[in-house]
Amino acid sequence: QIDHFGFDENHTFQQRYLVADQHWKKDNGPILFYTGNEGDITWFCNNTGFMWDAAEKLNAMLVFAEHRYYGESLPFGNESFSDSKHLNYLTSEQALADFAVLVEYLKTTIAGARYSPVIAIGGSYGGMLAAWFRMKYPHVVVGALAASAPIWQFGDLVPCGTFFSIVTNDFKQSGTGCSESIRNSWNAINHLSSTDAGLQWLSSTFHLCSPLKNLQDAAVFKNWLSETWVNLAMVNYPYKADFLQPLPAWPIQEVCKFLKDPSLSDKLLLQNVFQAVNLYYNYTGEASCLDVSETATKSLGQMGWYYQACTEMVMPICTDGVHDMFEPQKWDFDAFSEECYRLWGVRPRPSWVLSMYGGKNISSHSNIIFRGLDPWSAGGVTQNITNSLVAVVIPDGAHHLDLRSQNPLDPKSVQQARALEICLMKEWI
Amino acid sequence: QIDHFGFDENHTFQQRYLVADQHWKKDNGPILFYTGNEGDITWFCNNTGFMWDAAEKLNAMLVFAEHRYYGESLPFGNESFSDSKHLNYLTSEQALADFAVLVEYLKTTIAGARYSPVIAIGGSYGGMLAAWFRMKYPHVVVGALAASAPIWQFGDLVPCGTFFSIVTNDFKQSGTGCSESIRNSWNAINHLSSTDAGLQWLSSTFHLCSPLKNLQDAAVFKNWLSETWVNLAMVNYPYKADFLQPLPAWPIQEVCKFLKDPSLSDKLLLQNVFQAVNLYYNYTGEASCLDVSETATKSLGQMGWYYQACTEMVMPICTDGVHDMFEPQKWDFDAFSEECYRLWGVRPRPSWVLSMYGGKNISSHSNIIFRGLDPWSAGGVTQNITNSLVAVVIPDGAHHLDLRSQNPLDPKSVQQARALEICLMKEWI
Repeated sequence: QIDHFGFDENHTFQQRYLVADQHWKKDNGPILFYTGNEGDITWFCNNTGFMWDAAEKLNAMLVFAEHRYYGESLPFGNESFSDSKHLNYLTSEQALADFAVLVEYLKTTIAGARYSPVIAIGGSYGGMLAAWFRMKYPHVVVGALAASAPIWQFGDLVPCGTFFSIVTNDFKQSGTGCSESIRNSWNAINHLSSTDAGLQWLSSTFHLCSPLKNLQDAAVFKNWLSETWVNLAMVNYPYKADFLQPLPAWPIQEVCKFLKDPSLSDKLLLQNVFQAVNLYYNYTGEASCLDVSETATKSLGQMGWYYQACTEMVMPICTDGVHDMFEPQKWDFDAFSEECYRLWGVRPRPSWVLSMYGGKNISSHSNIIFRGLDPWSAGGVTQNITNSLVAVVIPDGAHHLDLRSQNPLDPKSVQQARALEICLMKEWI
Repeated sequence: QIDHFGFDENHTFQQRYLVADQHWKKDNGPILFYTGNEGDITWFCNNTGFMWDAAEKLNAMLVFAEHRYYGESLPFGNESFSDSKHLNYLTSEQALADFAVLVEYLKTTIAGARYSPVIAIGGSYGGMLAAWFRMKYPHVVVGALAASAPIWQFGDLVPCGTFFSIVTNDFKQSGTGCSESIRNSWNAINHLSSTDAGLQWLSSTFHLCSPLKNLQDAAVFKNWLSETWVNLAMVNYPYKADFLQPLPAWPIQEVCKFLKDPSLSDKLLLQNVFQAVNLYYNYTGEASCLDVSETATKSLGQMGWYYQACTEMVMPICTDGVHDMFEPQKWDFDAFSEECYRLWGVRPRPSWVLSMYGGKNISSHSNIIFRGLDPWSAGGVTQNITNSLVAVVIPDGAHHLDLRSQNPLDPKSVQQARALEICLMKEWI
């Protein structure tokens, strides 16, 4: 159903989902249900090894459900993003309703699944969905594992600066002079981008695919650098991996090897910064130039997520350049709202997600594990709320790490967290 | 917000609510929140004396919130019912979201209410809303009293015939020959309405405002009679009251005094049936004729409810003439769907309400009292589900009775139920 919450739009669309049942105990064995987030579901399927490990231990069926408006699950095909009318059904509530209807469909159509207990699992936005799925549809899922889920990164539930100060700490702890070098880089860029010669120097030094032509381009360039540091913090895995980009183990440590001296002159400092970002974007050595319009994998549906951030998922984020290594930027809701209206023709409603999902007042729910272990723990649940709303925080973790396959290089803390998760899931089942 | 679940329609509307705070303890004393159902909120306010009694006992503030599309809370003014596009926002989910936003608004704007515990209270459809409000927004209300709430009158959760067999039992128990007289009346009407003279006789005998002209009119007439018996069962109060109509105490017993002999000839039988319905429609003696297009009070928004029944609130109901006193009629979903499409341009989705609210699988929720005491107990919760999902069934009750003011003539069972309710609410608070 394109619209679960209204009857005037009565069309349906095809939602993609993936099923793996090789470990499933057919007589109502459990189902682990991945609540797909903002991207192609096959990509999440290939980066959520934890579920494959868990399927063996729990004799579970795996289902990966694609989120509407991402991957191939487009309600209006190529028209889905054409205007605010077609985008109108891209909300978390519609996505959760899709999941509820899909679970019921699977349980009534797969032989032996009628009474299968279902557990929701997701990471990041998908982790929020997993938690909310249990909160809103406890008759559909017996519990949820919400990894790296910043369910409190809304309204004024947490200070807007926490996110970037956690990112900064990751760099501070990964090498002397590292976060200071990055903090100093912004002024260096500002100096150089004030002249044409400087812009040209930046473009060639950073091997940019399209040269910077003016201050606006320079702003995009700085934004791209910021996102790069954030993404590095999200994929700071203890082993070689290819989640957003192919990267070595502990990539922030590798990057920080180039950023030891924050007191260098502008050009020398920025040459080091180039080495650092080049490691992120060109670890394989295959890139002929760097593209400032791209930060993460193409599997993430950035356009859809931007719309969601402009409607329901309004996450206030700010920097001050003191507690973090970024250029100071206040959270300016009005400017944000104007930008949303310009881009999508919609206005964000920052308080709705709190009214809908309860903010910090969620203690009457049950059977949810919250895993915080990366910059997003800023807006995550990091302390137990009740005996059945459990928080696990991993000091050495990175975004989604606990959802990846087990690896001999996993820190002990991650191994223990996984064991605890399996144990709690068995209880729910 | 007209549409809580989409961002393309960004207009707002004015929702009416009534507040009474004379008994309220200003330092975060409790709030009893009436989840308005299908009608003018002032009417429910005047017929829910229980809340006024409870306000005194609990030092509570009373809030009565009008349901969108009823009374004066019309999202598009006079256009609200003009077509399926304008009706698109008439759903239980939107109504619950209205309530959630309203509670938050009241708590942040009324001095001393910031930490007031809120309890949802409602009857009938409003009782379902009260229960669902607690299920979906447990961060907004600490508990709910759901009176006469047929939350299981959906899908195949209960047999479709139960409702009318309970209505029939009320008549069977209220006088010898009573339900049999009504059962026999249908054939008598069928015989008479097969001729013009018979139609004329029926019209004048029943003092109808518009005479019956054909078989179609006769069908409307029979439908009106059925609804009259149903309404009598809903307002079978132990004392004189004016809920749907002004009526004496135990009105079914009064009606049954006319219906003692089911073996009478057609005309004599129907003259008695007229006496019976005349008591219902003309207890005050003020009616100059009876209008088959009207069964209940005008305060109920029948048009809006019909749309809701044609979309989300699909309640399968059937009769067989054996276990009940009505003409046999199977539940025919396809015919119902066609009729909905013809009238409103929408198709009902009978399984959605189950996916959304969980059907019988609601044990993970808490702090809800279900009161079943009238024909609607057919689809209600009549046994405790858990220690905090409590069912109270009153053998002598009628629709909404427990929500009315205390009365010296209340049966002991009703008095005890009220005391239990107050006690549980104190626990929640």
